This record gives sequence, structure tokens and C-alpha cells, in this order.
Amino acid sequence: MKGQELLDLINTRQSDRAYLSNPIEKEKIDRIIEAGRMAPSACNSQPWKFIIVDETELKNKIADCTSSKILGLNHFTKQAPVHIVIVEERAKFTANAGGLIKSKHFPLIDIGIAAEHICLQAAAEGLGSCMLGWFDEPKVKKLLDIPKSKRVPLIITLGYPASKTREKRRKETEAIVSYNKYQ
Amino acid sequence: MKGQELLDLINTRQSDRAYLSNPIEKEKIDRIIEAGRMAPSACNSQPWKFIIVDETELKNKIADCTSSKILGLNHFTKQAPVHIVIVEERAKFTANAGGLIKSKHFPLIDIGIAAEHICLQAAAEGLGSCMLGWFDEPKVKKLLDIPKSKRVPLIITLGYPASKTREKRRKETEAIVSYNKYQ
Repeated sequence: MKGQELLDLINTRQSDRAYLSNPIEKEKIDRIIEAGRMAPSACNSQPWKFIIVDETELKNKIADCTSSKILGLNHFTKQAPVHIVIVEERAKFTANAGGLIKSKHFPLIDIGIAAEHICLQAAAEGLGSCMLGWFDEPKVKKLLDIPKSKRVPLIITLGYPASKTREKRRKETEAIVSYNKYQ
Repeated sequence: MKGQELLDLINTRQSDRAYLSNPIEKEKIDRIIEAGRMAPSACNSQPWKFIIVDETELKNKIADCTSSKILGLNHFTKQAPVHIVIVEERAKFTANAGGLIKSKHFPLIDIGIAAEHICLQAAAEGLGSCMLGWFDEPKVKKLLDIPKSKRVPLIITLGYPASKTREKRRKETEAIVSYNKYQ
């Protein structure tokens, strides 16, 4: 794969907030999960589990946990035929100890990486996705039998997108990049 | 780009710990930074700055901050002709408030995503990379004039790799994936 092709894919990936009702092919889900599984992580801890929620009734209950009438958030989630719930698992001792000494919580960085592998792979499969960080976490844990002690950093919605690719709004390169010195 | 092509690229990306001395072409650095710039983030905060360190003397000083004789860590970093230092910037009010309420520090997830865009784009350009989370952060900040109040979650080494692609060691799919229930 050439450099421009990945940039094109990166530009295709977007937070999709409207989905068609078409189901997702099993082999696509398998490749998407494989992309997440192959993600790098601090000390190769792989501090994650992926729960694929594809039973419609259960998935709709999870979708209800991600929407808020008061805040006007995420009313689209029920349209997505599949949700992937990412659970944070214990990292290796070296990553935990290093993170403690340097006061950096590496598993969140790791889960960002794995989640983006999932979303980029979804885009490469012609699917849309959206990462959700705001939801009723205790309720999600109860619905999926996730132990109370665990955290659920992200939920990803997956489905065939019903909207077109938007142009991305990003800060200008000059505002975020400098050479050999902070600016 | 087809699904299998991205999976192949994901398998090509690895933590490269040996580099050739060849310099990196400017247009490759530009595309790598563009991949980082286009990364998604909570509430589109883009809470990052990328400092490209390519002045050899300064880069070697940064490399010294990432290695530890006592811990036997990261002695390879001096070989890499370029380091990208990622600074965490303030997120938008909505992302900060949401993160506070849900006790999730979204910028770390965001920076994981942007860093992996950088590493995947490097792989697509035929370059090697390695994310480093363990380094003398106060010293790095001093060398690059980064304000004391800021955090530096990651440094990425970049260069033409001197080693071959290794097979990845990852947990089995069955150990990290389940359907509709935590397992």
C-alpha cells in the first residue's frame, strides 16, 4: 500500500451518525476485530477485550445507554446494527509500574490505538463507525455482565453509512506542527 | 483500499528498534504529519502538538532522555534520524467536562489515535517507527522549550528500519473477543 492510499483511507473514516439497516457480513466483523487485535500497546500488554453486540434487542439497550435526551446526544446509535464495547483489562506489571512512576495511564493510549485500528478497518471494508466516550457505563456493564471493577472507555458503532463523506475540520498544520522547538 | 491491504499494513507496522542512517525525505514527513493531523478526537478537540526533531545534535539529546543504562531501555533511539515529540494540549470544554464527569481522560485516547496514524503512515511510506512512553519528561520539555504545565505522553522515533518484519505476538482471538456478553 502506498502512502497516499492510507491518507485517502484516513480521510474516508469519519464519525458516522446515520446508518442503513443492512446487516454486516461476518467476515468483515472478523477482519475488523483482527485489526484491533493486532494493535500495538505499551509493553505489548494488550489491555482490552472487545464485546461484539449484534443481538438487536440487547444492542438497542446498549444504544439507549449512549443517548441522552437532555443533552441531545447520540440519538443515531440505534440505527447501527453492531456495537463493539471495549473493556479495559489489566496491563502488564511493567506497563503499570512505568505508568505509575511517570503518571501516565498507558492503557487509555493503547485503547485509543486499538479503537482506531477498528475504525480504519471498518472504513477499509466500506463501513461507517463512530467512537462514543459518553454513556451510562454502570448500565452497560450490567447489560453485558462486565465486572464492576472494570472500565469501559469506548463503545464503537458499526454499520453501512447512510451519509456521504464530509470534509474534515482540523486545525491548520502551522498551528500544531513545529521543528526542534515548541511553538 | 481494500480490507486486506490495511490488515497487511497493520502487520507491517512494528516497534522498530534498529535504523539505517539514511535521512527521511521531507515529503514523507509531511504526509506522516498530515496523517496525525487528520486523526479523530473527542469533540474534535485535537489536543496535540507535534514537534519534529531533526537537528542531529538536539535529536541525540532527546534520544539520551529516552534511554536508561540502569533499566537497559531504548539504546537504539539515537540511530533514528527523526523524533516526533507529542505534546498534550488543552481539550475543548465539552471534552474536559465530559471526561471529568465520566472520569475518563479523553486526550490520552486521542493522542493514542494520532500517534498510531503517524506510525501507520510511516509504515505505508516504507519507514520504521517506535512509540516511546518512558523518558525523562522534564528534560525533554526543557530541551524543546515546552511549558512546564504541559505533558508529553509519547515520543515517536522514525527512520528507515534496519531489521526485518517480525511475526506479532498477540493474545488469541478467543481470549479477547466475545459476543453479547463479557467473557
